[in-house]
Amino acid sequence: MNFCSHCGAPVSLRIPEGDRLPRHVCDNCGAIHYQNPKIVAGCVAEWEGRILLCRRAIEPRHGKWTLPAGFMENGETTAQAAARETWEEACAVVVGAPGAAAAATEAQGADLSLFALVNVPHIHQVHLFYRGHLRDGRFAPGEESLETALFAEDEIPWAELAFRSVRFCLEAYLADRKRGAFGLHSCDLPPPPPEFL
Amino acid sequence: MNFCSHCGAPVSLRIPEGDRLPRHVCDNCGAIHYQNPKIVAGCVAEWEGRILLCRRAIEPRHGKWTLPAGFMENGETTAQAAARETWEEACAVVVGAPGAAAAATEAQGADLSLFALVNVPHIHQVHLFYRGHLRDGRFAPGEESLETALFAEDEIPWAELAFRSVRFCLEAYLADRKRGAFGLHSCDLPPPPPEFL
Repeated sequence: MNFCSHCGAPVSLRIPEGDRLPRHVCDNCGAIHYQNPKIVAGCVAEWEGRILLCRRAIEPRHGKWTLPAGFMENGETTAQAAARETWEEACAVVVGAPGAAAAATEAQGADLSLFALVNVPHIHQVHLFYRGHLRDGRFAPGEESLETALFAEDEIPWAELAFRSVRFCLEAYLADRKRGAFGLHSCDLPPPPPEFL
Repeated sequence: MNFCSHCGAPVSLRIPEGDRLPRHVCDNCGAIHYQNPKIVAGCVAEWEGRILLCRRAIEPRHGKWTLPAGFMENGETTAQAAARETWEEACAVVVGAPGAAAAATEAQGADLSLFALVNVPHIHQVHLFYRGHLRDGRFAPGEESLETALFAEDEIPWAELAFRSVRFCLEAYLADRKRGAFGLHSCDLPPPPPEFL
């Protein structure tokens, strides 16, 4: 950040009075520009025991497989964001339980259950994954996906997953499904070794 | 947002190619400035059965009672943010269980449990509350608090609470404590009626 988004004057990085961290402060109008972590919301969506994954058509990790997920937008809830991303990346409508009634809109997500919270502090992100089921088994690649597919447990492309949070979430999901009870799972990811940056 | 924080030129509000929502786009350098929801993290911290609340010394809701909570910062985890805010607003160290070992730092929060997720979409916030216990029963008003106090269940100042998410969290906490099992609670808050704006 170089300039004040309010008045256009240059900003300085300094600790404002009464604060404890450096912020971008406008030298002209005094506006303080805070930067905060972003939420990435996504879904583990099942159909007849198989899990929906998307192969990424965009960077980072172009060509790798991921759960449908993306940045939460202003004005929506976390579950709405998870359902919307599943709709945008995989053209799939998710509902909370198999056979649940269709949502009022294609990306409502109101009955999904929070399943995992993954902190990724070195990139200022919090990943939230919800559990759901495909409403009708329909899916297709959205604009940001090269392909979309359903994977049984022994078919998951572990070596070709895009993100560590996706691996954490899938491992926890499969373990919970095996024991017949779903919990809430949380972890904090350290910075990756250089070869995975 | 009026100016590009990267190059200082004016921005326009328009839908970038391939996007579906209006963004602030720089007319000069093309930078797209996304705005995303912020996370507020806080704690329900107990000591000998009573719950720690803070009376706010700042707006909004100056003079009202709240759970210690505030905006998550870049570079920290959600639990660290919850513990840090409890330290800053109430000078209290929280741990996951009564008698748990002291954290390595005063605001680590690594062993706290996520208890509530409250969406507040009309102000682009997600509130996360963690469960914890005071490490040693010590607390005092931080700079943003007029006073801090422990409240038994029948002493909680329900009519003087600052935020609806705090009420939701306290009600869920007391109900869970009564039944002897803590779950994860989630709700979406609609915009308040005008008199509570």
